[in-house]
Amino acid sequence: MADQREAALQYARKNKEKFLNAFKEILTIPSVSTDPAHSADIRHAAEWLAAQLRGLGMQKVQVFPTTKHPIVYGEWLGAAGAPVVLIYGHYDVQPADPLNLWKTGPFDPVVRGEEIYARGASDMKGQDLVMLKAVESLVKTGGLPVNVKWLFEGEEEIGSPNLESFIAEHKDLLACDFAMNPDSGMIGKDYPTLTYALRGLAYFELRVFGPAKDLHSGIYGGAVHNPAIALAELIAGMHDTKGRITLPGFYDRVQKLNKEERDELARLPIDDKHFLEVTGAPALYGEAGFTVNERTGARPTLDVNGLLSGFTGEGSKTVIPAWAMAKISMRLVPDQDPKEVHQQLIRYLEEHATKDIRWELTAMAGGSASISDRNNIGVQAMEKALETVWGMRPYFRREGGSIPVVRDMQNLLGIESVISGFGLPDDNVHAPNEKMHLPTWYRGIEAVIHFFLNLKPQS
Amino acid sequence: MADQREAALQYARKNKEKFLNAFKEILTIPSVSTDPAHSADIRHAAEWLAAQLRGLGMQKVQVFPTTKHPIVYGEWLGAAGAPVVLIYGHYDVQPADPLNLWKTGPFDPVVRGEEIYARGASDMKGQDLVMLKAVESLVKTGGLPVNVKWLFEGEEEIGSPNLESFIAEHKDLLACDFAMNPDSGMIGKDYPTLTYALRGLAYFELRVFGPAKDLHSGIYGGAVHNPAIALAELIAGMHDTKGRITLPGFYDRVQKLNKEERDELARLPIDDKHFLEVTGAPALYGEAGFTVNERTGARPTLDVNGLLSGFTGEGSKTVIPAWAMAKISMRLVPDQDPKEVHQQLIRYLEEHATKDIRWELTAMAGGSASISDRNNIGVQAMEKALETVWGMRPYFRREGGSIPVVRDMQNLLGIESVISGFGLPDDNVHAPNEKMHLPTWYRGIEAVIHFFLNLKPQS
Repeated sequence: MADQREAALQYARKNKEKFLNAFKEILTIPSVSTDPAHSADIRHAAEWLAAQLRGLGMQKVQVFPTTKHPIVYGEWLGAAGAPVVLIYGHYDVQPADPLNLWKTGPFDPVVRGEEIYARGASDMKGQDLVMLKAVESLVKTGGLPVNVKWLFEGEEEIGSPNLESFIAEHKDLLACDFAMNPDSGMIGKDYPTLTYALRGLAYFELRVFGPAKDLHSGIYGGAVHNPAIALAELIAGMHDTKGRITLPGFYDRVQKLNKEERDELARLPIDDKHFLEVTGAPALYGEAGFTVNERTGARPTLDVNGLLSGFTGEGSKTVIPAWAMAKISMRLVPDQDPKEVHQQLIRYLEEHATKDIRWELTAMAGGSASISDRNNIGVQAMEKALETVWGMRPYFRREGGSIPVVRDMQNLLGIESVISGFGLPDDNVHAPNEKMHLPTWYRGIEAVIHFFLNLKPQS
Repeated sequence: MADQREAALQYARKNKEKFLNAFKEILTIPSVSTDPAHSADIRHAAEWLAAQLRGLGMQKVQVFPTTKHPIVYGEWLGAAGAPVVLIYGHYDVQPADPLNLWKTGPFDPVVRGEEIYARGASDMKGQDLVMLKAVESLVKTGGLPVNVKWLFEGEEEIGSPNLESFIAEHKDLLACDFAMNPDSGMIGKDYPTLTYALRGLAYFELRVFGPAKDLHSGIYGGAVHNPAIALAELIAGMHDTKGRITLPGFYDRVQKLNKEERDELARLPIDDKHFLEVTGAPALYGEAGFTVNERTGARPTLDVNGLLSGFTGEGSKTVIPAWAMAKISMRLVPDQDPKEVHQQLIRYLEEHATKDIRWELTAMAGGSASISDRNNIGVQAMEKALETVWGMRPYFRREGGSIPVVRDMQNLLGIESVISGFGLPDDNVHAPNEKMHLPTWYRGIEAVIHFFLNLKPQS
């Protein structure tokens, strides 16, 4: 086995240019999922991936149509007794607008210095290629030490409308020990990172209604409760003076952070100064008693994502608006339940809304938080792989956002995900001049080679 | 003089049809001031009024051009020793859109039942005609008992951009004892009404800034103070639990209501039930310890006229907005000063805004409240006139809104205004199917005949 490890790494190092050419090939396909004008490009990208899988000796390679963009599947189950790893990826990309801010064409990949620039370079064609090229390095040097299944979707950037039902309808096909999801990134190029928890989401639209129609503030100011003010009062009451959320029972199910985990989060090489720099805010803010890494990763938060009421144009209009609207969302942590949070928000509104207004609450989107067992064999194999390549123990990060597919796989397949990709914070994901740092990309391929080999059962 | 009173009233009664025809004539002119396509109609309306004034024997009749729509002036100063009354009116109207909601053409006046329907019937060509026809009734039956000056503008519905400078430049021409301003209405057809106070206005735009750009609420929720929430907290703090405004020093200059005035306001035949009906609000709201008539007319109020922040479209977007905006305005009462209120709001923000956000405040519009001395000879003459015609003592109302021309005349000419017109609350002012109640219109003409005669010095 030591032989294959060295051979596979040597293969990867010798084929750097060939790997880069394949990377460039997929980056030239403008597989923008939002835009119907690109549906042929989407199909092209799906077929390109299917061909790659066939080239690697994968079986049952199939491009499944959906109501929108296809899902690519393939498998190789020849490693008897070894774990089955389900590799997730998406091949669609964000639109490239605004085009005029790109230094070179978004679908005309160009290497400048250590970076390759193109839409999708980091999110996530670069990550897909890391997985394909690590597997190729093993296939070409003695074969895969584990069983793999591949699932590439083409709708991640539009909210994966068909993924959940596809997984539900193909539970047997997708059965596995755990998933490998590289749709994530590192804290910095020198900081190998494993994400082991994701926050959940509960998203609402709250509308407050007052008078039956807009009123003249001169004639009626002093008669009715202004809906915009009533909404502001409801929002203001949702946090106490310590930055804690006041919805009744909101913290009841929140898992406490133990000392080991707090110590691990304290190791992260990102601090208040980092957050001040990247946000540009005048000062940081959050729940008292927790560090910024704890607050953004391991504690629930409540944000207002939008406000709208009355007259918002230039100048002045003396109106008492008939209604006011807020988009309000909470990031959830284990073991909060979005449905329970919905009920808590309703109770808060019932207790705090005054009788001089009416309100309507609509639940828009939601999902539970997910957390991986850090003793999972996949997590341990990746931890060791990252330490081997970077020469340091990786950072364990709780990420503030949600990756719905991680939750869907947990719910539908009963599996955990290893969340570890090789994007960097300055990759301009979803922005002009998206890029991938090539030295990190090559290191990623080596890390994934180690990862698969680390999973091989000891005989 | 008893003779002229009877003769003038008889003249008015005999000429009802002729008066109505003149009313219809001006209603057919689509003098919409917002729309450049109607500038010839605007000139037509101005010339029509100038011709009416000449027909009444007025002197120095002149159509003054402005940078936009002309001002019509005329005078008759033949009543030596009698007061000089400056009669204000505007001949422009609101646009008629949406046209499809009109039962008959907006500039094709039609009488249905007791009402005449047309754009401008109530606001305020009907009021202009009341003044012209009352003066005609006196001119034709022995002559005017007082001196009159007329000032008709064509820009009221677009904010009177040229009126203040015109008054400032023609102080001598406009010198008078008081103004008669019928651009107002009655509480109901059976309730003669005199408005003796108007609230002032202080209007602001407040912007709260947080992060340098919109942030992902998953990654950064828990790191920064959400500007939409910070704005909500600032707005929520502007009222205390008793509905009082918390800006430092806000009530220092507010004139207390004396018992006589509270008794007078309590007489008004509009109550909570009325306000509930016309506003359609689930319940009324306002400063504790004051009735709704006091709150809307005699107490200062603070409203949010608009809110805007972040994502306001359909669906959900998990953004922490970079900024949030509110339009905030206060209705002021004597002796509050809009400039001082601006400073009070700045102090409030300095004291309450947290260091994790930045704010910017822009003053948009403002003006002091005005109040008339109820012992003014004009007010007394009108009070008596209304009582004669309606058989009951009129209601003295403080109106919540502002009429800028009243303030301009107070500031520039040092005069008070008698504010008493004959519009009704259901006249559909600024809306489709605007109308004037003809029996009230005729009573208005009689009341103004009495008003002028009541002003004649007793010899």
